[in-house]
Amino acid sequence: MPARTTKLYEDLTDQVTALIRAGTLRCGDRAPSVRQLARERGASAGTVVHAYELLQARGYLRPRSRSGFYVSDAWRTTDQHQHTSRPSRRPTRLDVSELVFEVLEAMRSPDLAPFGSAFPGPDLFPLRQLAQLIGASTRRLSERSTLDDLPPGNEKLRRQIARRYLASGAQVAVEEIVVTSGALEALNLCLQVVTEPGDIVLIESPSFYGCLQAIESLGRRALEVPTHPGTGIDVDEVEQLLSRHRVRACWFMTAFQNPLGATMPAAARERLVRLLSRRGVPLIEDSVYADLYFGAQRPHSAKSFDTEGLVLDCGSFAKNLAPGYRLGWVAAGRFAQAVTRRKSMSSVGTAIPIQAVIGDYLGRGTFERHLRRLRRALQERQSHFLAAMERYMPAAMKWNRPSGGYLLWAELPPHIDAIRLHREALAEGISLAPGPIFSASHAFHHAIRLNYGHPWTAKTEAALKRLGNLIARTSASR
Amino acid sequence: MPARTTKLYEDLTDQVTALIRAGTLRCGDRAPSVRQLARERGASAGTVVHAYELLQARGYLRPRSRSGFYVSDAWRTTDQHQHTSRPSRRPTRLDVSELVFEVLEAMRSPDLAPFGSAFPGPDLFPLRQLAQLIGASTRRLSERSTLDDLPPGNEKLRRQIARRYLASGAQVAVEEIVVTSGALEALNLCLQVVTEPGDIVLIESPSFYGCLQAIESLGRRALEVPTHPGTGIDVDEVEQLLSRHRVRACWFMTAFQNPLGATMPAAARERLVRLLSRRGVPLIEDSVYADLYFGAQRPHSAKSFDTEGLVLDCGSFAKNLAPGYRLGWVAAGRFAQAVTRRKSMSSVGTAIPIQAVIGDYLGRGTFERHLRRLRRALQERQSHFLAAMERYMPAAMKWNRPSGGYLLWAELPPHIDAIRLHREALAEGISLAPGPIFSASHAFHHAIRLNYGHPWTAKTEAALKRLGNLIARTSASR
Repeated sequence: MPARTTKLYEDLTDQVTALIRAGTLRCGDRAPSVRQLARERGASAGTVVHAYELLQARGYLRPRSRSGFYVSDAWRTTDQHQHTSRPSRRPTRLDVSELVFEVLEAMRSPDLAPFGSAFPGPDLFPLRQLAQLIGASTRRLSERSTLDDLPPGNEKLRRQIARRYLASGAQVAVEEIVVTSGALEALNLCLQVVTEPGDIVLIESPSFYGCLQAIESLGRRALEVPTHPGTGIDVDEVEQLLSRHRVRACWFMTAFQNPLGATMPAAARERLVRLLSRRGVPLIEDSVYADLYFGAQRPHSAKSFDTEGLVLDCGSFAKNLAPGYRLGWVAAGRFAQAVTRRKSMSSVGTAIPIQAVIGDYLGRGTFERHLRRLRRALQERQSHFLAAMERYMPAAMKWNRPSGGYLLWAELPPHIDAIRLHREALAEGISLAPGPIFSASHAFHHAIRLNYGHPWTAKTEAALKRLGNLIARTSASR
Repeated sequence: MPARTTKLYEDLTDQVTALIRAGTLRCGDRAPSVRQLARERGASAGTVVHAYELLQARGYLRPRSRSGFYVSDAWRTTDQHQHTSRPSRRPTRLDVSELVFEVLEAMRSPDLAPFGSAFPGPDLFPLRQLAQLIGASTRRLSERSTLDDLPPGNEKLRRQIARRYLASGAQVAVEEIVVTSGALEALNLCLQVVTEPGDIVLIESPSFYGCLQAIESLGRRALEVPTHPGTGIDVDEVEQLLSRHRVRACWFMTAFQNPLGATMPAAARERLVRLLSRRGVPLIEDSVYADLYFGAQRPHSAKSFDTEGLVLDCGSFAKNLAPGYRLGWVAAGRFAQAVTRRKSMSSVGTAIPIQAVIGDYLGRGTFERHLRRLRRALQERQSHFLAAMERYMPAAMKWNRPSGGYLLWAELPPHIDAIRLHREALAEGISLAPGPIFSASHAFHHAIRLNYGHPWTAKTEAALKRLGNLIARTSASR
């Protein structure tokens, strides 16, 4: 983006923010339409959209489908109370797995209210339809497919995946796509391909525990980047870290980040990609939640700004179509052959009936309709959940309102320890994900991740109320 | 095994060998029945069976189902001409992948005679039946299975797998079984669990390239054990290497080893396991071919002698039921929890429709019937193939007659380079697997692995004849 455009975009963002904070624009007001504002300011529609996305991520605007942007008061919970994280400025070797496993294993009981779960409600997915399809898809496989569908994977499926990138603004060639057994395999393969043991990798703070575990088990070193619950990683900090350390790769989740729910504005993403390109540093992008946006369109992926083939964009159908089928991929840019080989080495290939059924499903053209329903359902569940949070959580608690996905980040009242709360909540039939499992340095002792993606029922509400009471009690007992 | 029994077993083996070499027992003669010999020598039936298995592996006896053992002349090609390998006695860091990938990628063309392939003919498997079953199996899955079938995996499937161990003489608890995405994933997970970067791992020489690649990519060091095409690794050598080096694990394929086709006699296996137990060294056992025996019964797995939980036995349905479904497992002994966690970390889980359909198939009880048909077919293909080898290969060539599986090992006439032959054969529409891809030190330049598991047709025969001519020509041109 040329300098003038960046400037204009920042100006627009600042001005709208000021209007809202001053009360000139009030919650529920319709914001000027993109077209109108672009014309008035002599800007491109893209510039205005970038500004609106940032405003949305910060909780100032909220899109309604087909009728533009409206002023929101979500910034009151997001922007005012929550800060960018302040992680250690030194790379660290990790040791988080023990705690993560303890927490994950405790959470598998079906009787718990699943606020700690990493999965959304299984009722959201067309599992019956896929089960209907899988027999026919498997019967149609030729004897040769055992060989033909070896890495990089089934041709038809890869073509469908490449095609879908257009929606996120990226042009991706079929040749770049490597099919994997879920996104986590893709991410692990990418990390192995672009780094060596001992290398420094930039990660978010807090970050997905799968990322921490991969870095730990492969003997890489993590350097955490300050990350905001609204707008994601701080690109200025990335720039400084790059100049101070020999960073070999970044591993970021730029949309609806797990655990924060944060989404980087398009302009920040673009700046990030430019910055990394100049230094030749690969970006492993975890996009597993990117389809679950509540706004008017899919956030632009970092991949869409990549001109050097340095972005390895990892996706999955586990969060948007078929949990349990373990089908993912990576659009690996210049690393496609290396990833293909690494995949052959570590698991030979991905199950051919799974590749076949997802390829066939995507070919039918009902995926986008399903996604629209899914997004609506998640947004509705978020509304119920946040309204109940307002009712039942003590005043000292803060949380954000993610613009997509099904995970939010809540900061506990001072002095409440998240691990202790996790154990006490389990005893009351409630799971939650304590902050320290998302930290290379066991930080975030006063934060939890909550999942709002399960059906909203009287039982769920009662559980959230119990959790609120537990937090209030614990807080008062000190 | 007590000393007296070991002695008796060796005596028996030596005596029968002498009788056959002297021509007293001739090819086609029926050997004394196990019961009769046991009675005559005051030995247990087990001791005689051990001796007969060794004689079978060495090519002196051949079992016929339900009618005992017969004298074979396979030893003339096996024992006389082929030797135990003589690898380097120092641990090495590896660099084999480049060559392996070049070879494997060249071999994927459907127009080649698939002598280099690692897969048997797809016509051997009930793929249609599985395709019929997968829809119903997937439809029956509950919404909870996305969670329930996470590692260690689907309960029903794990129970079926544990049950099948009885046939190989091992008692394996369901709790030990971890479902994986194919045996290669299992083997990689085990290696990560029982060793650290830089650790020394004993492997066969030659060995499966997947093993070499895993050791290379995980930064372990390989120490090769001399291995015989008939009887597998030399346990005396293992003992010496253990006393000279800090060996952290072994990775062996004890039955129908890839690429040799070698099978360790039961007594050698037992001795190996005792030896490793005394020193607390884990054995990662790759048993993917173990079901494909031509003899009267499945070779006793090393697992069956394990009393310490130190044997991690890795299996798969890729070679005996469902290639392309990528379903494997490990019976991980005392390492089961560690493997489960490592699996969660690296790929979350194995696709649930795949776990479900294989579990259902095994529950139906037709697997053993399918296996009997499969073994008969492979043995028949081996006969055709070996008969044609006799006809078409130059006299200076030597090969073995494995007692199971679908891979044999052939030594080329002197001065023929296997890599060059591989390239020239490709040009004539024939694939083969050159020896150096199975070597940590790029050894075995004069050996090739041949696959006899594809349908025996006039086209196959013509291709083998062309290969024989090519070898003869190349040999003569020097």
